[in-house]
Amino acid sequence: MFTRSAGRAPDQLRPIRITRGYTMHAEGSVLVEFGNTKVLCTASVEERVPPHKRGSGEGWVTAEYGMLPRSTHTRSDREAARGKQSGRTQEIQRLIGRSMRAVFDLKRLGERTIQLDCDVLQADGGTRTAAITGAFVAAQDAVNKLAAEGKLIESPILSPVAAVSVGIVEGTPLLDLEYVEDVGCDTDMNVVMTGKGHYVEVQGTAEGVAFTRAEMDELLRLAEKGIGELIGLQRQALAQ
Amino acid sequence: MFTRSAGRAPDQLRPIRITRGYTMHAEGSVLVEFGNTKVLCTASVEERVPPHKRGSGEGWVTAEYGMLPRSTHTRSDREAARGKQSGRTQEIQRLIGRSMRAVFDLKRLGERTIQLDCDVLQADGGTRTAAITGAFVAAQDAVNKLAAEGKLIESPILSPVAAVSVGIVEGTPLLDLEYVEDVGCDTDMNVVMTGKGHYVEVQGTAEGVAFTRAEMDELLRLAEKGIGELIGLQRQALAQ
Amino acid sequence: MFTRSAGRAPDQLRPIRITRGYTMHAEGSVLVEFGNTKVLCTASVEERVPPHKRGSGEGWVTAEYGMLPRSTHTRSDREAARGKQSGRTQEIQRLIGRSMRAVFDLKRLGERTIQLDCDVLQADGGTRTAAITGAFVAAQDAVNKLAAEGKLIESPILSPVAAVSVGIVEGTPLLDLEYVEDVGCDTDMNVVMTGKGHYVEVQGTAEGVAFTRAEMDELLRLAEKGIGELIGLQRQALAQ
Amino acid sequence: MFTRSAGRAPDQLRPIRITRGYTMHAEGSVLVEFGNTKVLCTASVEERVPPHKRGSGEGWVTAEYGMLPRSTHTRSDREAARGKQSGRTQEIQRLIGRSMRAVFDLKRLGERTIQLDCDVLQADGGTRTAAITGAFVAAQDAVNKLAAEGKLIESPILSPVAAVSVGIVEGTPLLDLEYVEDVGCDTDMNVVMTGKGHYVEVQGTAEGVAFTRAEMDELLRLAEKGIGELIGLQRQALAQ
Amino acid sequence: MFTRSAGRAPDQLRPIRITRGYTMHAEGSVLVEFGNTKVLCTASVEERVPPHKRGSGEGWVTAEYGMLPRSTHTRSDREAARGKQSGRTQEIQRLIGRSMRAVFDLKRLGERTIQLDCDVLQADGGTRTAAITGAFVAAQDAVNKLAAEGKLIESPILSPVAAVSVGIVEGTPLLDLEYVEDVGCDTDMNVVMTGKGHYVEVQGTAEGVAFTRAEMDELLRLAEKGIGELIGLQRQALAQ
Amino acid sequence: MFTRSAGRAPDQLRPIRITRGYTMHAEGSVLVEFGNTKVLCTASVEERVPPHKRGSGEGWVTAEYGMLPRSTHTRSDREAARGKQSGRTQEIQRLIGRSMRAVFDLKRLGERTIQLDCDVLQADGGTRTAAITGAFVAAQDAVNKLAAEGKLIESPILSPVAAVSVGIVEGTPLLDLEYVEDVGCDTDMNVVMTGKGHYVEVQGTAEGVAFTRAEMDELLRLAEKGIGELIGLQRQALAQ
Repeated sequence: MFTRSAGRAPDQLRPIRITRGYTMHAEGSVLVEFGNTKVLCTASVEERVPPHKRGSGEGWVTAEYGMLPRSTHTRSDREAARGKQSGRTQEIQRLIGRSMRAVFDLKRLGERTIQLDCDVLQADGGTRTAAITGAFVAAQDAVNKLAAEGKLIESPILSPVAAVSVGIVEGTPLLDLEYVEDVGCDTDMNVVMTGKGHYVEVQGTAEGVAFTRAEMDELLRLAEKGIGELIGLQRQALAQ
Repeated sequence: MFTRSAGRAPDQLRPIRITRGYTMHAEGSVLVEFGNTKVLCTASVEERVPPHKRGSGEGWVTAEYGMLPRSTHTRSDREAARGKQSGRTQEIQRLIGRSMRAVFDLKRLGERTIQLDCDVLQADGGTRTAAITGAFVAAQDAVNKLAAEGKLIESPILSPVAAVSVGIVEGTPLLDLEYVEDVGCDTDMNVVMTGKGHYVEVQGTAEGVAFTRAEMDELLRLAEKGIGELIGLQRQALAQ
Repeated sequence: MFTRSAGRAPDQLRPIRITRGYTMHAEGSVLVEFGNTKVLCTASVEERVPPHKRGSGEGWVTAEYGMLPRSTHTRSDREAARGKQSGRTQEIQRLIGRSMRAVFDLKRLGERTIQLDCDVLQADGGTRTAAITGAFVAAQDAVNKLAAEGKLIESPILSPVAAVSVGIVEGTPLLDLEYVEDVGCDTDMNVVMTGKGHYVEVQGTAEGVAFTRAEMDELLRLAEKGIGELIGLQRQALAQ
Repeated sequence: MFTRSAGRAPDQLRPIRITRGYTMHAEGSVLVEFGNTKVLCTASVEERVPPHKRGSGEGWVTAEYGMLPRSTHTRSDREAARGKQSGRTQEIQRLIGRSMRAVFDLKRLGERTIQLDCDVLQADGGTRTAAITGAFVAAQDAVNKLAAEGKLIESPILSPVAAVSVGIVEGTPLLDLEYVEDVGCDTDMNVVMTGKGHYVEVQGTAEGVAFTRAEMDELLRLAEKGIGELIGLQRQALAQ
Repeated sequence: MFTRSAGRAPDQLRPIRITRGYTMHAEGSVLVEFGNTKVLCTASVEERVPPHKRGSGEGWVTAEYGMLPRSTHTRSDREAARGKQSGRTQEIQRLIGRSMRAVFDLKRLGERTIQLDCDVLQADGGTRTAAITGAFVAAQDAVNKLAAEGKLIESPILSPVAAVSVGIVEGTPLLDLEYVEDVGCDTDMNVVMTGKGHYVEVQGTAEGVAFTRAEMDELLRLAEKGIGELIGLQRQALAQ
Repeated sequence: MFTRSAGRAPDQLRPIRITRGYTMHAEGSVLVEFGNTKVLCTASVEERVPPHKRGSGEGWVTAEYGMLPRSTHTRSDREAARGKQSGRTQEIQRLIGRSMRAVFDLKRLGERTIQLDCDVLQADGGTRTAAITGAFVAAQDAVNKLAAEGKLIESPILSPVAAVSVGIVEGTPLLDLEYVEDVGCDTDMNVVMTGKGHYVEVQGTAEGVAFTRAEMDELLRLAEKGIGELIGLQRQALAQ
């Protein structure tokens, strides 16, 4: 069986930290840490919507994702300098956006946009799942601010949402992969769930060999456990 | 219960057609039709590899995806004219590439590239799953051509691979969604499986409400049935 | 004298096929075949005009052109992936657009746009002339649809238009060059004419040695013959 | 009959000036003026060739074209700021490059490149034909410099080349259109010919109504006359 | 002590020429020459303002800068072909724009834009300072034209503005560096001043070794002398 | 006289914090804080040089700069999404690069590159000067690491370097402007100096009215005081 660093059990999350109010300008600003993975998630409220929502009475929630060039082991090119976002970046920011919209009632939000920016300061595996988990807290802070200003009748947030990665490394199903585990894994799955234990996204990929139904079931079980804990930690952070 | 067009049963594929040799220049050229969805899949062999594979003794398999501007109900902008591929396009072509590589032994392929181009001539839902299903047949034709030229010792293809979409529409789980079903569905899942019945990719998304484990199980069952049939049809097409 | 494939005479067109209704969404959809050259031409009607026509009471007719990456002998890069259209692509789509506008009364069209998309599925020389010939039929179908919906008082189409290439290969003037002829030709000329036998475009280029006035006269004679036949075939196709 | 400005006859060129050595760094630097149209043509020699000519023993001749933003009546956007060259720009620079290569023996040039830059300082119609006429003189100066340095065995230039526009304005065929004539013309033709009176390029376009064979013949006659005179003026300029 | 070409004294400008009306379309068109450096500066008036000024009652003054590809010793790539302006180009055009706005009262200009285009025909050092010096004259011509048309109540120009480079070469402080001096200098400073002798911009850069306060004082003294002379020459040019 | 926030004296820096080892992957990683301005500066060592230094025996030091979208009061567009870096961004990163190279002996560095990335987490004025001050500390850490690995014979760093902004607000010269001061200032100057008190860069800009020599002298005096203190704080941070 695969041995994890720091004596971590296969079904154990890394130490999680959720720090609200990390920067001062944004309506919501959260530093989320999954072990050494650190992502700054900010929520910005804009009193306008993109063209496809204009006049609809509905708002919009969307996300962008980026990695600082030296958030990784070896420096990667700055996307702004290269002049375009990679396919991976676009895939991740679309995932974060869909995950947030899955728990938002856009009618209740009114014709405004919540823009979530998830910037990876330090990467050690699981940046997209950390981003989703942190972005939800930033979004909740932004919604609370709108509510405090009397701009909302009812909260547009229907449920919390969080995400975690799971995977099979040397035959062992593991929760919350860190970088060295991610590199060596045969199957990698990102799961996004609501506070009610329902699925928002399931994205499983066979990196090496195709995986069986039994393996998928075990991975889903691990993910459910991890997400339950993450949602508890989000609640704690928001209660402070 | 939701009634499908043409009296189709919930667990029934649309009429599938796989036409090999559709165009004359490519090493593999397949027109795949899932009902009204028509995708031209070509496989091109190039005797070189991208930089990250040079000198490795291994080959590479990759894919690009595009839609003709008027393959859809209303014309969409030509990506070449806009100057960039959308996030959706990149997501789909990355999915096709990973799906193909999952059944390829890159060492056996040798230092050459198989480039799969999947271009949608007419869209009616399920273009990405049709593309994967057709691209496999085009790739097999290209491999057969290499083998006939004595360039391969063993076939680099380990298994067939095919894909299908499944989803829940008005509470009914359905196999192989067409466009009107896709637009109205609550949950949408694309599943890629090998000929051995193992998973290569599972991508489930809650479009409206989050979905339960029981719903996911039912969707996976439908997908398994559909992919089994598709792999049979690929075999028939390749036998001709 | 140069011998053509399939015993074709110097002043003979390749077998021409014009298939209407090739795809289902577009207002006009034509597959045009000049021998092995196959171009899908679709006409899309949009109830708006570009900025320079707004409020003018006039419509607009424009074209875009593309080649599928493996429509050619060796795969060419996808323009959407490279992020820009080549000079050749732009030159061809400007030519198609001008050729269509030459037979359109934009006032009679009203403030709407007909967008012609010409996508080469298989290339064997003469793709731009096939595109013009097919695009006219697609445009006529779109106009007929508008007329049937009562949106036009008079037909905005003043005349048919078609195009053919001519060239001098090893001293022999030839009509409708296929790829192997095009590669070896000294002079290459694309001619666009109306149903009345008038010129819309003449583009002659000395590939190797400059050409004489006598050679040009012979090429124009061949082109006139070929275009007369093509306009007859357009009429037949539209009569069905 | 249409009356031209400054009492110009229909078959008369505008005053032509060809100034060599206009700027100091380039191997050839020519300011060419066709009336108020002023184009700076420089020839730069580079001791390398583009990839498709490497190791071929042959050289390359190519051209780029640009307009200063306020060379025109109303300012046009700077292409460098917009981030791409227009289709018109690309079409023109491809035409200039082909015209120059038509009179060059690339083998005799050896593996080096002559890059022609044609920048319009002031536009009043006919910029592309002025550019070709001036670029030839700049290219000849660059070749003379190479010859003086002992780098060439034989001159790679086979013949002079020049270009002129012709057109039909209010029924009158005219030589060398200026801007107000170009705007109002029904047919516009650019002709490029060698010193031997052979055609390199003929590009005729019906702006309004399609043109007849008789009209084309008259335009070609005017062009031949004009180009003969331009080649005489090139010779005079080079003799100084 | 460093010896300058043409026996120029350390505190002496190169021969300066300011030619108004250099091209015919622009509202102001000035060829400015600092020795062999030649920059064409045009001023274009547009009766609209950029979005951030709309409805403000204020106008806008802005600048763009470019170098013709062969204005330099060795040909540099055309920015329009590369698809973007370099950092150096942007830095220079921002500097020219700020320098012009420093002497403009945008309220008096009214809601219109003066666009200055500075294109280097021939470069021999000091192109940005020549551009500022020439652009002011072009701007004044455009303002005079607006005034003559009765479109201005008061002149929006508060003062002339001019610029010069200074630097330390082999220990000697020099005024108005030409290319060979610029290449070898330790410190390079561009100074922009008004007619009242006040500073608009000071940009000093240590190319090799950092410079002392005493050196800066000497450079500022030289710049002040040179700009005084340049403003006199602007006045002379405008008086003609 | 202008009153500063938090009772700050006109010649007083904001509270400065320099935190080394802020992220774990980079060879140097420094969070620098000038009051509420927070910039993460990382130094990455790469064992290769850009083309213009290959084979020279010399290394290279360069910088990139970016702002997180919500580091500012209102969210600004992500440059990676817009597809290009603004002129401001390029100007700043060129300034940082030049400032670092001014204190580096590139021969002693050997053929390797130190890439400095300065990313603004929170902006409150003075981000470029904070970036230079922090980047130096990160660069020193990277050099120390190279030295510890035995890869350097002598330190390539010749002197510390730091930067500060100064400006005139409502007639009062101020050191180290924060955002509200920067917005309202008449003159803004960024000064970069070495540990020996020599100038590397002086960039003064009249935002509103042109400034006098006496004002410049006072600003330079303030800058010298501030930079002296910053270099002391860099030394303290590096001593820990």
